[in-house]
Amino acid sequence: MSKGTVVLAYSGGLDTSCILVWLKEEGYDVITYLANIGQEEDFDAAKKKAESLGAKKVFIEDLRAEFVEEFIWPSVQANAIYEDRYLLGTSVARPCIARRQVQIARQQGAQFVSHGATGKGNDQVRFELTCYAMYPEVKIIAPWRIPEFYNRFRGRKDLMEYAEKHGIPVPVTPKAPWSMDCCEVAMRLDGWPRLTGSICIHTGVPVKVINVKDGQSKDTPLGIFSYLNEIGGRHGVGRIDIVENRFIGMKSRGIYETPGGTILYHAHLDIETFTMDREVRRIKQGLGIKFSEMVYNGFWYSPECDFVRHCIDKSQENVEGKVQLSVFKGQVYILGRESPRSLYNEELVSMDVQGDYDPCDASGFIKINAVRLREHHRLQGEASSNR
Amino acid sequence: MSKGTVVLAYSGGLDTSCILVWLKEEGYDVITYLANIGQEEDFDAAKKKAESLGAKKVFIEDLRAEFVEEFIWPSVQANAIYEDRYLLGTSVARPCIARRQVQIARQQGAQFVSHGATGKGNDQVRFELTCYAMYPEVKIIAPWRIPEFYNRFRGRKDLMEYAEKHGIPVPVTPKAPWSMDCCEVAMRLDGWPRLTGSICIHTGVPVKVINVKDGQSKDTPLGIFSYLNEIGGRHGVGRIDIVENRFIGMKSRGIYETPGGTILYHAHLDIETFTMDREVRRIKQGLGIKFSEMVYNGFWYSPECDFVRHCIDKSQENVEGKVQLSVFKGQVYILGRESPRSLYNEELVSMDVQGDYDPCDASGFIKINAVRLREHHRLQGEASSNR
Amino acid sequence: MSKGTVVLAYSGGLDTSCILVWLKEEGYDVITYLANIGQEEDFDAAKKKAESLGAKKVFIEDLRAEFVEEFIWPSVQANAIYEDRYLLGTSVARPCIARRQVQIARQQGAQFVSHGATGKGNDQVRFELTCYAMYPEVKIIAPWRIPEFYNRFRGRKDLMEYAEKHGIPVPVTPKAPWSMDCCEVAMRLDGWPRLTGSICIHTGVPVKVINVKDGQSKDTPLGIFSYLNEIGGRHGVGRIDIVENRFIGMKSRGIYETPGGTILYHAHLDIETFTMDREVRRIKQGLGIKFSEMVYNGFWYSPECDFVRHCIDKSQENVEGKVQLSVFKGQVYILGRESPRSLYNEELVSMDVQGDYDPCDASGFIKINAVRLREHHRLQGEASSNR
Amino acid sequence: MSKGTVVLAYSGGLDTSCILVWLKEEGYDVITYLANIGQEEDFDAAKKKAESLGAKKVFIEDLRAEFVEEFIWPSVQANAIYEDRYLLGTSVARPCIARRQVQIARQQGAQFVSHGATGKGNDQVRFELTCYAMYPEVKIIAPWRIPEFYNRFRGRKDLMEYAEKHGIPVPVTPKAPWSMDCCEVAMRLDGWPRLTGSICIHTGVPVKVINVKDGQSKDTPLGIFSYLNEIGGRHGVGRIDIVENRFIGMKSRGIYETPGGTILYHAHLDIETFTMDREVRRIKQGLGIKFSEMVYNGFWYSPECDFVRHCIDKSQENVEGKVQLSVFKGQVYILGRESPRSLYNEELVSMDVQGDYDPCDASGFIKINAVRLREHHRLQGEASSNR
Repeated sequence: MSKGTVVLAYSGGLDTSCILVWLKEEGYDVITYLANIGQEEDFDAAKKKAESLGAKKVFIEDLRAEFVEEFIWPSVQANAIYEDRYLLGTSVARPCIARRQVQIARQQGAQFVSHGATGKGNDQVRFELTCYAMYPEVKIIAPWRIPEFYNRFRGRKDLMEYAEKHGIPVPVTPKAPWSMDCCEVAMRLDGWPRLTGSICIHTGVPVKVINVKDGQSKDTPLGIFSYLNEIGGRHGVGRIDIVENRFIGMKSRGIYETPGGTILYHAHLDIETFTMDREVRRIKQGLGIKFSEMVYNGFWYSPECDFVRHCIDKSQENVEGKVQLSVFKGQVYILGRESPRSLYNEELVSMDVQGDYDPCDASGFIKINAVRLREHHRLQGEASSNR
Repeated sequence: MSKGTVVLAYSGGLDTSCILVWLKEEGYDVITYLANIGQEEDFDAAKKKAESLGAKKVFIEDLRAEFVEEFIWPSVQANAIYEDRYLLGTSVARPCIARRQVQIARQQGAQFVSHGATGKGNDQVRFELTCYAMYPEVKIIAPWRIPEFYNRFRGRKDLMEYAEKHGIPVPVTPKAPWSMDCCEVAMRLDGWPRLTGSICIHTGVPVKVINVKDGQSKDTPLGIFSYLNEIGGRHGVGRIDIVENRFIGMKSRGIYETPGGTILYHAHLDIETFTMDREVRRIKQGLGIKFSEMVYNGFWYSPECDFVRHCIDKSQENVEGKVQLSVFKGQVYILGRESPRSLYNEELVSMDVQGDYDPCDASGFIKINAVRLREHHRLQGEASSNR
Repeated sequence: MSKGTVVLAYSGGLDTSCILVWLKEEGYDVITYLANIGQEEDFDAAKKKAESLGAKKVFIEDLRAEFVEEFIWPSVQANAIYEDRYLLGTSVARPCIARRQVQIARQQGAQFVSHGATGKGNDQVRFELTCYAMYPEVKIIAPWRIPEFYNRFRGRKDLMEYAEKHGIPVPVTPKAPWSMDCCEVAMRLDGWPRLTGSICIHTGVPVKVINVKDGQSKDTPLGIFSYLNEIGGRHGVGRIDIVENRFIGMKSRGIYETPGGTILYHAHLDIETFTMDREVRRIKQGLGIKFSEMVYNGFWYSPECDFVRHCIDKSQENVEGKVQLSVFKGQVYILGRESPRSLYNEELVSMDVQGDYDPCDASGFIKINAVRLREHHRLQGEASSNR
Repeated sequence: MSKGTVVLAYSGGLDTSCILVWLKEEGYDVITYLANIGQEEDFDAAKKKAESLGAKKVFIEDLRAEFVEEFIWPSVQANAIYEDRYLLGTSVARPCIARRQVQIARQQGAQFVSHGATGKGNDQVRFELTCYAMYPEVKIIAPWRIPEFYNRFRGRKDLMEYAEKHGIPVPVTPKAPWSMDCCEVAMRLDGWPRLTGSICIHTGVPVKVINVKDGQSKDTPLGIFSYLNEIGGRHGVGRIDIVENRFIGMKSRGIYETPGGTILYHAHLDIETFTMDREVRRIKQGLGIKFSEMVYNGFWYSPECDFVRHCIDKSQENVEGKVQLSVFKGQVYILGRESPRSLYNEELVSMDVQGDYDPCDASGFIKINAVRLREHHRLQGEASSNR
């Protein structure tokens, strides 16, 4: 008798194929689920493979549009960046993928979900916190944390032997295993021409990209993001080699590539500063840092992340305008910007025009700001000077 | 009879030459002071010019070493960056320059100091807050905020006429007027070869730079900084076009170039994350953001900036190591890093070795983190789902 | 010919009566305006006095309800408290009062507004920033910052002489001059009986107060606030003697009394923690601290305060419930609470029931949290132990 | 053969007595350890009981002085308070107790430590994180998280039966079980006279307490803290009934009593604001909130808590002075303060003396602060007014 039905996040690769078969051996009915979030993959082949290995059902889900609109766009609004460098590509994909997985599980009456994430990484956390948040009664099977599984499969060799024994087709050339998302991998060509163009932003999200060189333009979320990923990727934009701090307390090294995200980060930052009040920006910057930590740690679906997304979204009401930029040899250059919501007032700031501004006020401003400093020097100056 | 002695921050240019003469007309004895913080300038010529215009004394002060060691290095430790983009080049020069100016004023018994900063900018604030903090009784003459002065000199033309009338030599080709500091301007050549090398860091500050291509190395603060500025400048590193928020409440547009600062920013960030605990880093990041705002706003000499510098300095005790990097066509690429203080443990993080780590613990970790999320869903889920 | 019309914030006291006459002397048409925000005042007498002194028009405005609903309630939601102690009574009154003043000015075609706040205090800032934010072209006359005025009136004696000379009735017993707001002053009686009752809160604001001792209850904002102010005041709740930091950079000593605000602070804090997610609360706490600083400094009408109020308001959606409390001899004791939105789960937390909770998970949770600490000890322990 | 030696944190109560015997049954050699941090306890009786139950060794350690100096004093400096209300009494005791326990374990060559904390609480975390941080290789036995133990002992009745069977003396009147620390429990008497006195503070910690009523004074850390605990306890100071958020994600209800801590919290806050620069205080306040969360969550011994303690300690250099206060009927009233390091300047702030202060400067200060608000209104006002 079956132990129940499990929905397995299936990639078509060696690991999750072995997990599929192992789950069957363990007595589960297995439904496989593969999300298309823009990665390069032969989805038909993966489907056939899953079926041939005994999956009861196979779901191939095209999540590209919702991934861009519901997960990447809020990250762009937040200027999300983890530890000053990492643009969170994979991190935002996990809740998107896991959300659909629990939807399928609920709909198919499956009590179990499973995945192939390792026991030391961040993805297991991101995946499972999403599942628990959206389907609190779900039971999660994480084979790489089950001793019977990980003691049996101590390395690639064990997986290969198991695959051979159970008729699992083995890829001849193994693909790069842990970074298959659209947001972090892109082909590149040398000698690719400079992109010069502009990005239009409305309420903090891109609504149009125009390449003035060849006249191309895109105006759907997925179209915009894919185009920037392609162009940026060919120019080697957004490649980084970093050591980062995982949620589980280890440092790990990662080499990431987030071309589209990098271009949007710079474009959004520019229009935001152009149209947002200084002090709102300061508070929003703090919220963006918190947002990035939450997302990195797997808390996309949490009350606090809901709350922060709401606040950030509110801050974006006037973030609107067009950025001129150039993408060339690994760099994104911002060349200019314009906006109907601009708070930049060329005349006010001009050194040749006083306008409404009285320079004498600045004297009072500075002197009042100095009251505290002068008093401090007078009353505690000796103490300070001894330091 | 003289109204007293004023120490004027003198640049040798048209503005401050006119101010020099005007102060004399107003009845002051004028001492000029010109700081060398690395900018390209003919200091001898400036000295002669000041003397010829009637300065009682002329001070030319070489502050390059102290500028790098006491002002730039703490900014590197802080990863100082204003509004996510501006590396604070000019901002950190002001307190360095003004500090010496008030030292000269005290030593020369001058009650007054003066400068040529405009009435709408940040520099007037940075300059004057430093003066008030270090010499609380000082009186400041800011001609561009005095109606008799700014109403008389309404534009460049008025200054030129005044100069002609008073025998002030007028530059034929006016220099770029507002960004003369070493940290923001650098020459560049096309076709300059890629720099590949490494930077050694100790307690958060660079102690050596090595260029593996030509075997050059530098190991003094000034030597290191000048070299990186030169190399980075030739590669066009760190050029930005931004709109920023001034302390006085206006947005202004600036085009900056901070080649050395940009290279050091990336190198320091890398070693810091490599050697610093995750949570210490998080707190220190917040302090660095505050530090940047203080410095931008002119509060280098303030109790709070003292305090934050102390805290940041403390955080840097173990920030030590060597970064391999490449500087090429506008980009700084981090290629690798090593450190005797590394907290990165390749074996612990390896997917093939369990070591001391028990993957089962991660299940408990995730489930306890999910307690709150599941309860929230159970008890307030309906409310949330209505949003 | 008149210099124009000025709307003067008039209190009926000596200072503003002298200012009224002085403004007339200076050539202005004066409209007086007196806001009723709950202070004890003979408004009719004040009206007659203003008319007799030559006010062109006299406005007495009852702002009590809007003061409570639009200014105090958001402060309750924010748990607003400045520097850990001051509940911001006066601070929130200023924008309420000034808002109506500029409305009157606009409606009466007055270009000027005036007030009697001193030149060293916070109220001048709070008052004027509100005016500039809501009526950017307004001109402000602050006599206590005008040399001709403050040099003429160097103390109470000068004001008295001027009053006598111009037929201004002088109060025999001067009232306590700088804290006349309802939120900071209240009578008290010894031997007043203990209040035992409950406060009902909905979306973070009180909707009902019930005194179980005498069966009284209030359910309008103004009714609730006045009742708590009265009861709390009689019990001496919320009296503090503090030194605080003014926005203009001085420390000042203040003795405040905020009985109603203190009771509501405790009640709201209690229901909030009961119904709000831990991490949302943490972020909201930070926003509340920022809100308090903004309000104290006079930035109620600013983009950042708008933004923060919106975020805090959002956080209050589920802050609902009833707090049982006792007010007695200067203290507010929280006795219990209940809520349909409670996140407190007695069964889950019980030590006798495991329920859905597996204690073994805590072992994993602790061990994963220790990964970082153990690694740090192992790799940098010596360095740390030397400290 | 023995499985090894375990150092058990032993309280003398029913739970840990059963654990002692159970550990022996399981094959361990048991050393018991009981820390005296000021709680009321018959230490001799506990010692004899442990010996009679088969403990190989018994350690009774007087940690009172180090608890006050090394754990409570830094919390006073930090104004540590969790979630705006809880003064962290028990939380700071855990690292103190656990530190000695691992010292004993190391010294006695014990590989194991054990404790009687439950599987749902905070204390298990605080206890074990300290152990792991200071003795990374230690193995922890937490019986209440071991199924064989908690399934056997499902309630008090099971413990009683086990005790009877194994000759464990059972207390007739069970003591209040979860709050035995000196810092949270105190006797009280009605009619106890008002304490009026003063507390002297140096570098942020109390150095003397004087009761002017009876002339008593204390000047050692332990003496001061014990005295304030006694006096405060008798007046019912610092009793709260709250719902708080545990680290493991549950809300729990707690009734706490922290009399000494409450008095010191108010006294320290007062002198701190009196002697500390406004902006330093703001930054330090943020660090204090972080410190409180760390301590509550069990991270006393962590790199981040080390760092924050260092920063807070630095901020306390000038926190020095004497607070006059009164403790009466549940309240702490601050009556006044004096300090050689005061930054309060009565003359500067006086409304009758202008001194060095020019009120006109305030006009400039306010107008420059309004630049941003007026521009915002002008450029985005319509957008705002639609909200």
